[in-house]
Amino acid sequence: MKKVAVIGATGYTGQELIRILVQHPEVKVHSAVSSSKGGKPFASVYPSFSKTADFTCSSDSIEAISTEVDLIFIALPHGLAAKMVNQDVLDKCAVVDLGADFRLKNAGDYDEWYDFTHPNPALLEFAAYGLPELNREKIKSAKLIANPGCYATCSILSLAPLLSAGLVDESTVIVDAKSGVSGAGRSLSLGVHFNECNESIKAYKLGTHRHTPEIEQALHPYSDKSLAISFTPHLVPMNRGILCTSYGSLKKKMTEKELFDLYSEFYEDEQFIRIFDPQSEEYQYPETRWVKGSNYCDIGLSIDKRTNRAIIVGALDNLVKGAAGQAVQNMNIHFGWQESTGLNHAPIFPA
Amino acid sequence: MKKVAVIGATGYTGQELIRILVQHPEVKVHSAVSSSKGGKPFASVYPSFSKTADFTCSSDSIEAISTEVDLIFIALPHGLAAKMVNQDVLDKCAVVDLGADFRLKNAGDYDEWYDFTHPNPALLEFAAYGLPELNREKIKSAKLIANPGCYATCSILSLAPLLSAGLVDESTVIVDAKSGVSGAGRSLSLGVHFNECNESIKAYKLGTHRHTPEIEQALHPYSDKSLAISFTPHLVPMNRGILCTSYGSLKKKMTEKELFDLYSEFYEDEQFIRIFDPQSEEYQYPETRWVKGSNYCDIGLSIDKRTNRAIIVGALDNLVKGAAGQAVQNMNIHFGWQESTGLNHAPIFPA
Amino acid sequence: MKKVAVIGATGYTGQELIRILVQHPEVKVHSAVSSSKGGKPFASVYPSFSKTADFTCSSDSIEAISTEVDLIFIALPHGLAAKMVNQDVLDKCAVVDLGADFRLKNAGDYDEWYDFTHPNPALLEFAAYGLPELNREKIKSAKLIANPGCYATCSILSLAPLLSAGLVDESTVIVDAKSGVSGAGRSLSLGVHFNECNESIKAYKLGTHRHTPEIEQALHPYSDKSLAISFTPHLVPMNRGILCTSYGSLKKKMTEKELFDLYSEFYEDEQFIRIFDPQSEEYQYPETRWVKGSNYCDIGLSIDKRTNRAIIVGALDNLVKGAAGQAVQNMNIHFGWQESTGLNHAPIFPA
Amino acid sequence: MKKVAVIGATGYTGQELIRILVQHPEVKVHSAVSSSKGGKPFASVYPSFSKTADFTCSSDSIEAISTEVDLIFIALPHGLAAKMVNQDVLDKCAVVDLGADFRLKNAGDYDEWYDFTHPNPALLEFAAYGLPELNREKIKSAKLIANPGCYATCSILSLAPLLSAGLVDESTVIVDAKSGVSGAGRSLSLGVHFNECNESIKAYKLGTHRHTPEIEQALHPYSDKSLAISFTPHLVPMNRGILCTSYGSLKKKMTEKELFDLYSEFYEDEQFIRIFDPQSEEYQYPETRWVKGSNYCDIGLSIDKRTNRAIIVGALDNLVKGAAGQAVQNMNIHFGWQESTGLNHAPIFPA
Repeated sequence: MKKVAVIGATGYTGQELIRILVQHPEVKVHSAVSSSKGGKPFASVYPSFSKTADFTCSSDSIEAISTEVDLIFIALPHGLAAKMVNQDVLDKCAVVDLGADFRLKNAGDYDEWYDFTHPNPALLEFAAYGLPELNREKIKSAKLIANPGCYATCSILSLAPLLSAGLVDESTVIVDAKSGVSGAGRSLSLGVHFNECNESIKAYKLGTHRHTPEIEQALHPYSDKSLAISFTPHLVPMNRGILCTSYGSLKKKMTEKELFDLYSEFYEDEQFIRIFDPQSEEYQYPETRWVKGSNYCDIGLSIDKRTNRAIIVGALDNLVKGAAGQAVQNMNIHFGWQESTGLNHAPIFPA
Repeated sequence: MKKVAVIGATGYTGQELIRILVQHPEVKVHSAVSSSKGGKPFASVYPSFSKTADFTCSSDSIEAISTEVDLIFIALPHGLAAKMVNQDVLDKCAVVDLGADFRLKNAGDYDEWYDFTHPNPALLEFAAYGLPELNREKIKSAKLIANPGCYATCSILSLAPLLSAGLVDESTVIVDAKSGVSGAGRSLSLGVHFNECNESIKAYKLGTHRHTPEIEQALHPYSDKSLAISFTPHLVPMNRGILCTSYGSLKKKMTEKELFDLYSEFYEDEQFIRIFDPQSEEYQYPETRWVKGSNYCDIGLSIDKRTNRAIIVGALDNLVKGAAGQAVQNMNIHFGWQESTGLNHAPIFPA
Repeated sequence: MKKVAVIGATGYTGQELIRILVQHPEVKVHSAVSSSKGGKPFASVYPSFSKTADFTCSSDSIEAISTEVDLIFIALPHGLAAKMVNQDVLDKCAVVDLGADFRLKNAGDYDEWYDFTHPNPALLEFAAYGLPELNREKIKSAKLIANPGCYATCSILSLAPLLSAGLVDESTVIVDAKSGVSGAGRSLSLGVHFNECNESIKAYKLGTHRHTPEIEQALHPYSDKSLAISFTPHLVPMNRGILCTSYGSLKKKMTEKELFDLYSEFYEDEQFIRIFDPQSEEYQYPETRWVKGSNYCDIGLSIDKRTNRAIIVGALDNLVKGAAGQAVQNMNIHFGWQESTGLNHAPIFPA
Repeated sequence: MKKVAVIGATGYTGQELIRILVQHPEVKVHSAVSSSKGGKPFASVYPSFSKTADFTCSSDSIEAISTEVDLIFIALPHGLAAKMVNQDVLDKCAVVDLGADFRLKNAGDYDEWYDFTHPNPALLEFAAYGLPELNREKIKSAKLIANPGCYATCSILSLAPLLSAGLVDESTVIVDAKSGVSGAGRSLSLGVHFNECNESIKAYKLGTHRHTPEIEQALHPYSDKSLAISFTPHLVPMNRGILCTSYGSLKKKMTEKELFDLYSEFYEDEQFIRIFDPQSEEYQYPETRWVKGSNYCDIGLSIDKRTNRAIIVGALDNLVKGAAGQAVQNMNIHFGWQESTGLNHAPIFPA
């Protein structure tokens, strides 16, 4: 049994990690660190965990923890992990950071998109971008893994096959994304006060959302020129789930069957990617309800014949494949375990 | 007091019409016709109307009703009004059809998009498309008014100023639309069973939704070449509301202030259009909660500088400005009343 | 036109008052006072009010306002109005307080239930409890009207006929109440963070909710001995609405028809009370959806024959009949207007 | 590996069974029987199961299946299992019926409460009532297990300790219950059409709900005279979860600590019962969100000192502890496995 710690264990992502880790057959949760709840029983913060995770929150430092565990998950608001992680920590244990601090390779992007100057730009090169389906080899050998953003995971997985095949005009790519409210975390703010978002939908951060450069960076290897996408997030009145509707003009005519074959081949051995077959008699597009609680990313395919646009619909659970599940998938790769270990939860429906 | 009838009074749109009409100072509801509920008290179908609309549903024919009222609203599934309305009826009274049967000018579009051959194509030319902000003059003199679709109203109002100014490349227009569930009506089906749509979002009818030709037809006068849009509807777990996020590549650089000025001027005297000012200190984009229960269509403006795309966010209440409210607005125009008569309901929040 | 002010205009109750008042034919909103938003356009706080209430929030004192208006509504957290209202203010204008500060006659109840010592107990005797259906005469002549609590209104209206007829064993009365989240107001707290209450139900404040003494006080005149009820509130994942399920053991056998006749007679001329007839073919019990946006209180009746208990189901909109609507009803009585003036909104459904 | 079948696999309860069974280490799903979907891939009915349960629905008869499996789960509307199960089937395999057909011992109760005459009353005596916490010994040796109703499970577990200790006046017991919509199943009906139940709460079947005799029957052994309860179910706009608020007048004064000790002892070794400690600093009452997706039943305790009533709050997931999870718990007991095998899912939150 490997020992792991979660720093930031009492946020939504942190407690979802705990949920997955306590059911994982190969690990033991050694520390659940919370700056605000140190010393309190974890189940007093989340009564759901009574009888399942009856340990106490810790307030230990990363230095102390790094000497005792094999791997640390960090689930903190951006800017904190960048200050916390250093070579000394990484010499002692591996780190999977679920925040944004090690996702971008270009330090200047942090100044531009995140309004902070990265304190440790040398680590950016060193970190592996933790999207296993596209970057498995680098993850295997990395001590520092930057777990992708929720929107980014869904957008990148939706678009990579299309771009890699050179089928789409790069200047036409638009991702119209929709997310449940848990993506905003547990910190109080008016926008996620129940009555302010229930029974309503809104767009936000038009043209300025921080997952934009992350998506572009991850898709650049599949694109033959500089890709600039429009990314528009929306807030949907539901707890969990992300749906990305992605648009791109095709360079030539093609059929939905060809699109399906392309995606099926691209993700051929991927256990967590499910491609919906447009030729199926009962074809449906992905819906967030079909992935809830699971590590799947579902992808549906359509061609708008009148405009010759490919429209790709991706769906995932923002707290699982979009965060904690993918982090565990990265841990499994890091330790050389079967990639789906502890991640075989069937989606729960209706929930 | 003018006398009006509602045919199809017990669907969601029909009862919303009743709600607005019983509070309208210039009309009296003479008949609430329901093929399935004839003879029953209206308030036994919708207990909300007890003490407010204590009349009985009728099962009279349109011929009988047309001799007794000044105007008939028809709120039926498509295909029925086309068989019901004829010159004889129109000689006796005006008709506002809330369905799709008289919206498209080209009869062939019904074969292509609606899978039925229009039984009375001569009336198509005769009918006025009931979008007052763009077609007020024709509505004034029409005996047959085709009330626009909910998605169509939001999409057209969002895009008309941009297209009319010739600012956008017509081949790049995409409308990514999101609707509450009431748009699907009261007929039972698995897709709108509570547990099948609650806490989930999905895309549907990609490239094939019937409001597509309606949007294109209404926008063609503002466009200098054949416009073909991609229109993608989504189902959102909430009762009411439509949000349309519309994308178009700008032909030249422009500022959000210029965009705001353009829209403000285009809708200068329109009481039901509210343009959100992107220069405002507390700028927010439209959200469906701000229009609930009202006849407003809110419009927000953004330019994605990196890609030089205009992104327009429109919001309306699908049962009011997207259906019953706009039908009453058309009635007000028809009778020469102040256009906002009976439509001054402030939005209700939180609801 | 009478001039009115709302102090606390930017809370949920305050803005609901504004919604009703701007559509009221006999009044003009002179001041919308907000301690936190003074100087800001009201529609920048609630964009719903753009074009409908285009005034600016004031930060004037109650003293200043009292010289300029005919009536002041106060919609503040408890404890504030008690310090604000005095004889000097009441000499100049009438006051309807929507908080709890003048509801209880016994000053000691504030120490016991509200943890504060009432600063002006002399006013308690002076204030009229603003439940028109039971206390109309006192309201007519009062300068200070204490608008009832939302739960209290629903509970009292549900139980008064039963108790007044002496039919129920007073020691057996239980009110199991369920409320939408807007009852908790707009202040941020974890319990009303979207993900913490969406898709869940909970009981809270068992045996200690502050509406308990208010309900008992209002029902005592109808009871021949000291009444002590159990009152249990629950939080339901919806924006608006209160449903109270009230239980009481009957002293003798009776039929549901007799119960219906009793309630119908008790509320015979009441415009805002709707009694559902248990003998009706299509009998349904009240549901909060049938009253949304309206000033109605719906009441359904049942007798559990096996246990000889009366079970009364009451439903109202907590922000209308449970707060702002009832406050306007009280204002109408105060000014001698028809009681339903400006309150004839039909319920909005589905919403 | 034991082989099991699910008859009625495509209802909500059936597919929840499949979800739990495919993750259960000791069983293999041999047949998923569906009268309407026979021959179709299970994942075409519920796309959530793609890659997790890639088998085809069967339309085999129970006779055929009984020769091939070790245990059959039946998840059908009431009345069907009673006709299907007979001694011949039970000679070949065990049966856990998740419907109501074998829950009541008195055949006459089916005539009275279910409007059907039981076709096989001899089996009623033979069946074990499958509430492990109260009836474990009988379950162990039974070939036919009647899995309790969802409301019944929550009500019985909430009240058994109190009644068994003789602390409560049996004539005063009231259960006010609240359920999510999935309890109504997947069959279409207006009451569970999205817009008809979203954003609203209602009471239904007052005094007539079919779980009433089941609750009374299960509690009679703990009661020294004939117990007759009032049971009132409510429909809450959420997918999953049941909350029961139970009331009973105490025969003497006691403290909440005494109540806590009583319940803690009564359920001392029960892995799926969690008693919330009222003396805890951060005491909260059970909420349905804390049990979602898990087999826990949470119980909270309160004494209303003013009225000397005990108020017990129970919460469970209606599809897990209230149906499929408890059925698997019963299977585990039947096969002599550890009772929590395959049931250690931590609750999922927020979901």
